Amino acid sequence: MSSTLINNARIATANEDGDFVHIDATQILLREGKIKAIGNHITDTADHVVDADQQWCLPGFIDCHTHLVYGGNRANEFTQRLQGVNYETISQQGGGIKSTVRATRALDEDTLMLQTLRRARRFAEEGVTTIEIKSGYGLDKETEIRMLEVAHKVGELTGLNVQRTFLGAHALPPDSPMSAEEYIDFVCQTMIPYVAEHQLADAVDVFCERVGFNLAQTERVFMAAKQANLRVKGHVEQLSDSKGAALAAKYRALSVDHIEYLAEEDVHLLASAGTVAVLLPGAFYYLKEKQLPPIDALRQHRVPMAISTDMNPGTSPIASLLTCTNMACILFGLTTSEALAGITIHAAGALGLANKGRLKQGFDADVCLWDIESPESLVYEINGYRPTAIWIGGKRVL
Amino acid sequence: MSSTLINNARIATANEDGDFVHIDATQILLREGKIKAIGNHITDTADHVVDADQQWCLPGFIDCHTHLVYGGNRANEFTQRLQGVNYETISQQGGGIKSTVRATRALDEDTLMLQTLRRARRFAEEGVTTIEIKSGYGLDKETEIRMLEVAHKVGELTGLNVQRTFLGAHALPPDSPMSAEEYIDFVCQTMIPYVAEHQLADAVDVFCERVGFNLAQTERVFMAAKQANLRVKGHVEQLSDSKGAALAAKYRALSVDHIEYLAEEDVHLLASAGTVAVLLPGAFYYLKEKQLPPIDALRQHRVPMAISTDMNPGTSPIASLLTCTNMACILFGLTTSEALAGITIHAAGALGLANKGRLKQGFDADVCLWDIESPESLVYEINGYRPTAIWIGGKRVL
Ligand SMILES: [Zn+2]
Ligand SMILES: [Zn+2]
Repeated sequence: MSSTLINNARIATANEDGDFVHIDATQILLREGKIKAIGNHITDTADHVVDADQQWCLPGFIDCHTHLVYGGNRANEFTQRLQGVNYETISQQGGGIKSTVRATRALDEDTLMLQTLRRARRFAEEGVTTIEIKSGYGLDKETEIRMLEVAHKVGELTGLNVQRTFLGAHALPPDSPMSAEEYIDFVCQTMIPYVAEHQLADAVDVFCERVGFNLAQTERVFMAAKQANLRVKGHVEQLSDSKGAALAAKYRALSVDHIEYLAEEDVHLLASAGTVAVLLPGAFYYLKEKQLPPIDALRQHRVPMAISTDMNPGTSPIASLLTCTNMACILFGLTTSEALAGITIHAAGALGLANKGRLKQGFDADVCLWDIESPESLVYEINGYRPTAIWIGGKRVL
Repeated sequence: MSSTLINNARIATANEDGDFVHIDATQILLREGKIKAIGNHITDTADHVVDADQQWCLPGFIDCHTHLVYGGNRANEFTQRLQGVNYETISQQGGGIKSTVRATRALDEDTLMLQTLRRARRFAEEGVTTIEIKSGYGLDKETEIRMLEVAHKVGELTGLNVQRTFLGAHALPPDSPMSAEEYIDFVCQTMIPYVAEHQLADAVDVFCERVGFNLAQTERVFMAAKQANLRVKGHVEQLSDSKGAALAAKYRALSVDHIEYLAEEDVHLLASAGTVAVLLPGAFYYLKEKQLPPIDALRQHRVPMAISTDMNPGTSPIASLLTCTNMACILFGLTTSEALAGITIHAAGALGLANKGRLKQGFDADVCLWDIESPESLVYEINGYRPTAIWIGGKRVL
């Protein structure tokens, strides 16, 4: 594997404290897939030497929460909602998540792959080098597995680092005779052991909500995951304070995601558990929500905040992580530094990736060059920039 | 000039009434820069025959309001605002529009061009084929002219149709001894006649607002434009109901832009004058405004609504017209059909371009192919798609 020395760069990264800062170094050496050195006086030889000409060198961005693999399209439903039709009516007409499940089940692996690849390209273009992809639109064994396999192949074909999450407990399967309890039995007894045995996913997720699964069902999934040695995360407190975050903290979840309705008194539990708060402003925006996540309390308790697209066909069809950083600032009041930390160091944390999301010796060599005046520009402008060079695991892909 | 026959397309366009619809035709013939025929039984020969393979064929999109030519960057100011510093303080520190004027004046034509080209590329990538570009960051003769010349050259270099608007009355020049009245004298007596004589712009614009120019000053500019045979448009009712829209209607303005504070009783004046209402949801979003434009009244009076980015470094640094259509739906409650009409037929209207913005015999051959399930997808998904082919004036550019 070849080595690369980047010279004359302006280098910015999150530091230990999660502050995204300009560091005093102009050179970065990539070797054997890792960052071997960062400094001002690196004299090592390398197979490739790149003059960054004062461009900014940043860690590759990490989207830690997406539903990238799906069939169909819910533009029609969006159009209906804008005309005043409510979600219940749409759901009764067979729309909503049910329509995505039907469309996903109907697609063979190749078609599902092609559609997912098209979406993945949008993320890669913007400097995303690691992306999490969830299952959860199959809700049967065959399709859940197909989704996770497609996610894996998307990684192989694009060069993106793909982290997979099993989200069998996303919704009750449509047209199924199973009760919620029976379906959770299936998820816990059949699916999670299978997923673990065949290494199809890195973590297990649950949609804990009045319209999803209740606290007891969520806990059963977390226990099954623990038994299978898989880390957990949760879609929690999106529409109501259901105490999913506290439960997730009890299971030392990697992350709690959405959390608009997270109670301030539960925030300290996340801090103690080392759980990352994943903010999903795209869903907030599309659903025209009013309830803001408890940002100040998260800051006070030093809970790391990640930002993700939640890319999905129903509530957050937004294929731009940088646009979501902008929304996190405008809609949730984050600072630009917090936003950049939210798609690097803390997004890595939300995936349990200790070697990603920073430019630091020993970290994975996921690196982008940007021809920008400052890293803040990427947050402040929407659709303003593209990287001029990208390395993933030390390999140049752009 | 070569001819192109596109077969097997699904064709959608706004009709006479401004409804964006799927039309009963699968072929479109481009010849001599124009749409020569649309139908199902076209047997003409053409130099190029394209099989669209059921992709959608749409008119090229039109962004009718941008400030694309500027120097500098206001990311820093964005960061400060997020940290709670108010605009007045920023302005007193030399920030705000003053900083953009200083930065723009400082750049030579080539540098200004390169920076503008980078931004123009973002629009072209998304299927924009016509873009309006305003002056207004020079506020002196030399720089205003340079901006308009750069805008022209951007059109030549990219192939985009560029419409230019002279916005000398954007703000009072910083560090100038002139009073507002004196500056308006200069705009009306020196600049507008010069711009008209040298054909540097297609229209004249004014920022009519408490923080811009008052109604009497705005009227002086409109009169000077009329005398020079230039059409007018106005930045009006963005922050207050200043009655700029009524004045603009009196001068049969092409468009009134922003109009969050437009009084319902003035809406009929726009209808009578044939003036287009240009909605700029990007600025509304960035400024966290609460006051919505009077959409229902505009609908009732059948005032055409266009949508634009207002791309500018201060209040709307958003280089995605499609994202603005999404914001128009989510934030202003437009339908997807209205949104698509707003970046085609009505955006053409806002620029006085009678031959653009529709797929119809005799119209300019500005056409894109899209591999999408329906045109609504372009509005509903953010950053989802890119055109697979683009023709501008019948010439294939992608
Ligand atoms: Zn989600
Ligand atoms: Zn403007």
